[in-house]
Amino acid sequence: MLTDLVVALDIGGTKIAGALVDGDGRILVRAQRRTPAREDGETVMRAVEAVVDELAASSLWPLAGAVGIGSAGPVDAGAGTVSPVNVPGWRDYPLVERVRRATGGRPVTLVGDGVAMTAAEHWQGAARGYDNALCMVVSTGVGGGLVLGGALHPGPTGNAGHIGHVCVELNGDPCPCGGRGCVERIASGPNIARRALENGWRPGPDGDATAAAVAAAARAGDPVATASFARAAQALAAGIAATASLVEIEIAVVGGGVAGAGDVLFDPLRRALRDYATLSFVRHLTVAPALTGTDAGLLGAAAAVSPRRTGGAPVSLTG
Amino acid sequence: MLTDLVVALDIGGTKIAGALVDGDGRILVRAQRRTPAREDGETVMRAVEAVVDELAASSLWPLAGAVGIGSAGPVDAGAGTVSPVNVPGWRDYPLVERVRRATGGRPVTLVGDGVAMTAAEHWQGAARGYDNALCMVVSTGVGGGLVLGGALHPGPTGNAGHIGHVCVELNGDPCPCGGRGCVERIASGPNIARRALENGWRPGPDGDATAAAVAAAARAGDPVATASFARAAQALAAGIAATASLVEIEIAVVGGGVAGAGDVLFDPLRRALRDYATLSFVRHLTVAPALTGTDAGLLGAAAAVSPRRTGGAPVSLTG
Repeated sequence: MLTDLVVALDIGGTKIAGALVDGDGRILVRAQRRTPAREDGETVMRAVEAVVDELAASSLWPLAGAVGIGSAGPVDAGAGTVSPVNVPGWRDYPLVERVRRATGGRPVTLVGDGVAMTAAEHWQGAARGYDNALCMVVSTGVGGGLVLGGALHPGPTGNAGHIGHVCVELNGDPCPCGGRGCVERIASGPNIARRALENGWRPGPDGDATAAAVAAAARAGDPVATASFARAAQALAAGIAATASLVEIEIAVVGGGVAGAGDVLFDPLRRALRDYATLSFVRHLTVAPALTGTDAGLLGAAAAVSPRRTGGAPVSLTG
Repeated sequence: MLTDLVVALDIGGTKIAGALVDGDGRILVRAQRRTPAREDGETVMRAVEAVVDELAASSLWPLAGAVGIGSAGPVDAGAGTVSPVNVPGWRDYPLVERVRRATGGRPVTLVGDGVAMTAAEHWQGAARGYDNALCMVVSTGVGGGLVLGGALHPGPTGNAGHIGHVCVELNGDPCPCGGRGCVERIASGPNIARRALENGWRPGPDGDATAAAVAAAARAGDPVATASFARAAQALAAGIAATASLVEIEIAVVGGGVAGAGDVLFDPLRRALRDYATLSFVRHLTVAPALTGTDAGLLGAAAAVSPRRTGGAPVSLTG
């Protein structure tokens, strides 16, 4: 008999993905809907329920035990509610209770999406085998999560590791979060592109003005594009070094669309870390690209259900 | 019979203090020597041994079990070594083994001084009863430590919570640690005084140009003195907010000589926190002055020996 099967939900501002995930991290059944992010809260919830219903139609559904949710944040794991910045219809929305009801009363674990990605990388990715790690997503926003003392550290509300809104520039630009000089305000994809455009970089004939296009220009030697990535790398390095000083991490794993730039990001990031990670106990920090890719959210939601799913050897199936 | 008695050592760049501390945090016997900080490593160790010998002369000595050390950092708790910045004769110095031998083979626990102060505040001070806390010392330097999930979090090497060298200004002034824009470079006592002097503040007839004198001037309405404290408060707020975003703390406890400025520091600090601690899960952070005073190092060294000594109710004596 198949055991250790869990229901995983990855809820973002663009899509709502669901899966049945086994104890080895195999995704056996999938479902997905577009997030109706501009609609009212009940309409968004109906999209979640449609994903659950599609999973429930699988013959494996009765074998699935608990439910894990990784959601765009902020979340409040204690209260079981979510308030995703990009889903205005959900404010203190009782997602845990609604999903519990939609899944026939199954127990539900909720974490933020940065924490979920971290659980995935610790279970199956670049942070595997590390007892103390920061994992981060650099994309439209910048998020993250922590592994401390060998275990996922979601924090009391499920938001710990939120490196995107660490201030690295006291008098820096105002950030939509209400702060200023945040890592995200400097290092996210849209901010890399904005800065390149402001400093004179122009997109090619295809009109692509994304961070990926800036990365391609940097790879071709464009100095403005290169400088915009260097600035992002500097902010990420300061945030990573701050995390290392505060909680002693051994590795920083970087994923998300911007990490797809490869050496264009990682080379200046490793150089900048030498400027900011100077104390004896942070100097030997490793930086590595994330490995779990687009399924990180689903794997991480599954991993968050059970501590057995993080930290090393995969759980074996019994039966 | 008196039990739960431990040997506590507080090793700094100015003095080496020792005590026998009981399970209620009472200091029953004390000894102290000046730190011969400019001498060779063996000379410094002889001062530690003199403190131990004085404690060993007490009739209570045979009842003392383990030894706790809080030392100026960086320390390496795993290796049992210390490399205090202000004690150049000690580099990777095997302090744990030397103290073990000097105390008749007793087991020795080593943590950094910021971690020790945090253990003291969690046991007997302002962080008591909190499960997630940052405690910091703002003095000649800026140090700190963390309580996470109800327990002291020293990190693998005993240096976690090292908020003084978190960067809050990407292109800020170079810091002696090798980084730049560190919290300590902006908020330590000497830097508060330096900035006031650079901007035209002048000491009174007594020539006192310390941060305490700048605080007195700020209290009397001097705008340059007030601005220097406001700048320090801004850097501390950004560092505290970063810590809250990364590990979800409920309280930040601030001690050390600069915290003696009282409202001159705490008023602008609480205001600045509103600018930097904006996310839902960090917005309700409490800031409080430390309570354990000059004995924090000894209490914390004692507390670090046993988890029972942190987190709430004092340990009762049996006998």
